[in-house]
Amino acid sequence: MKLSELGEFNLIKLLTKDLVYDPQGVIKGAGDDTAVLTTSEGIWLLFTTDMIVEGVHFSLDYSTFQQVGWKALAVNLSDIAAMGGRPTHSLVSLGIPYGLESDALVELYAGLREAARKYRVNIVGGDTVSSPGQLVINVVLLGEVEAGRAVYRSGARPGDRVYVTGTLGAPAAGLCLFQNSELSCSPEVEDYCRSAHTMPQPRVEAGRILATCGVSSMDDISDGLAGEMHEICGAGGVGCIIREQDLPVDRRVRVVAEKAGIDPLQWALFGGEDLELVFTVGSDAEEKIKREAAGKGAIIYNVGEITASGKVMLERLNGEVVPLMCGGYDHFLR
Amino acid sequence: MKLSELGEFNLIKLLTKDLVYDPQGVIKGAGDDTAVLTTSEGIWLLFTTDMIVEGVHFSLDYSTFQQVGWKALAVNLSDIAAMGGRPTHSLVSLGIPYGLESDALVELYAGLREAARKYRVNIVGGDTVSSPGQLVINVVLLGEVEAGRAVYRSGARPGDRVYVTGTLGAPAAGLCLFQNSELSCSPEVEDYCRSAHTMPQPRVEAGRILATCGVSSMDDISDGLAGEMHEICGAGGVGCIIREQDLPVDRRVRVVAEKAGIDPLQWALFGGEDLELVFTVGSDAEEKIKREAAGKGAIIYNVGEITASGKVMLERLNGEVVPLMCGGYDHFLR
Repeated sequence: MKLSELGEFNLIKLLTKDLVYDPQGVIKGAGDDTAVLTTSEGIWLLFTTDMIVEGVHFSLDYSTFQQVGWKALAVNLSDIAAMGGRPTHSLVSLGIPYGLESDALVELYAGLREAARKYRVNIVGGDTVSSPGQLVINVVLLGEVEAGRAVYRSGARPGDRVYVTGTLGAPAAGLCLFQNSELSCSPEVEDYCRSAHTMPQPRVEAGRILATCGVSSMDDISDGLAGEMHEICGAGGVGCIIREQDLPVDRRVRVVAEKAGIDPLQWALFGGEDLELVFTVGSDAEEKIKREAAGKGAIIYNVGEITASGKVMLERLNGEVVPLMCGGYDHFLR
Repeated sequence: MKLSELGEFNLIKLLTKDLVYDPQGVIKGAGDDTAVLTTSEGIWLLFTTDMIVEGVHFSLDYSTFQQVGWKALAVNLSDIAAMGGRPTHSLVSLGIPYGLESDALVELYAGLREAARKYRVNIVGGDTVSSPGQLVINVVLLGEVEAGRAVYRSGARPGDRVYVTGTLGAPAAGLCLFQNSELSCSPEVEDYCRSAHTMPQPRVEAGRILATCGVSSMDDISDGLAGEMHEICGAGGVGCIIREQDLPVDRRVRVVAEKAGIDPLQWALFGGEDLELVFTVGSDAEEKIKREAAGKGAIIYNVGEITASGKVMLERLNGEVVPLMCGGYDHFLR
């Protein structure tokens, strides 16, 4: 049905059904001027927002509306994860192109709802407006963390070890597959890489555990590992050395890279949108984190060390040490 | 300077200077994965967002970037006001068209900052992305209200009186002047109406006082008085009668209406974006509110009564009583 036939009021009624996962803490959800929420004592609020725009952050050629909805919430969940927090409540704003069918929005909300349920988030309202241009989705997310336990980008100290919570480069490999239909790989390889691009999995549980274990700094890898290391080193007034030989790249990503004639380490360093966490940890907490990870069956990867140099460096496979450029996706470099 | 020369990092550095009005309650502002905030005990959080899109909610032909920044925050402030709350912290997302100069964004942020300072709001972060289409601004705003004291749309009871906090229709008159440059009025008339359109003043202080006095329901008039009465009556399961003869319209709005050959009551009922508050109040609290208003030198206007009929009715100037259609601006009716 066309939105112009349905009308704004009915659209909102349709979309806002069944959006509150856990009514605890929600005095008032969607349907009034604002949502009304409560928090507990001894809790800090985390507060983040991300805007994603059709043609910039996603393409409807590669993604379903449901996947776009998932991703819109996932990138925000990843920010809460990177603080060591627990996500709680969300608002969703949609800028809707003229002529879009209401089914598309129902599907988009199905994706939002799927991510919200998996990560126990209440969607408590938002805004729907028309957009003469592209589909624009802005998600804002609140989270909570025990007072004093938020993990910032700025805490890394020389000698700390640098870890990531999973392999890198799969979303970039997935995008490469979407953009180059002549590259043909096995269904297993294609599914793995494509879904890493369309339905990235934020590391909320890992972030909670890492915060409890006392990591010194943490960030999510939304803009590529290289870019995040610049953030962490800049914020902490430190440097680092990242070792190419230790960068974890899944074998399926290597298959795509080989077909495409691309160095998979480029994807691991600059690919972006991995939604893995990168964290630094002093020797005191390192063993505890390894034990926790082993206990959960999770693999974490040591990819380098923090240095006092103030410079972000890369040790190449041949032993050469070179400056590691930022190289993450800069939205205005076009 | 072109944004592509400045780069995202430098842009954010430029924009996020001096955004925290009151550091109390802000553990971490812009610059990490999320903002980190504290709240007090016995406080409810208010949580709202509004997206405004160039060509839909504002035109750069009529408004400066500074005015657009003001308005983006003002419409959110108005939602907090309508709950009886105190605004606290905000995040700003910008979808920036290719080729926009950084000066424009600095000006936009000057307007955001101006509204933030006037209403004591901290801007604690956000997101900047590129937009292949129009300029898109999404503002999210947190506020606080004493536990149990939020004013909903749903509390109106038959016999309650309906009030508005100021005159209506000036923003619509301003828009009419912008769109019809052949209409020439005195500078005083033009300035009043145009600035009501470009720099609307949310009624935060009035909302606080009204919540304290115990109004039964409240809403801001962002979509026209008629539309808001449908919201209030729908939410409360009541009806109302609004009297045309009591609708407050400023003499300057009447001047523009006469030149334009338009009934100014149309603007008062359906104009939208007034950012005045409409509230309902039982006889017990009415006298207290009148005294409070008089003490502050504020004028409030009784425009009708709540009825048990379930219908939103209008008493015309000739005494005829007719159904009052919703008629507010529906974003998808085009």
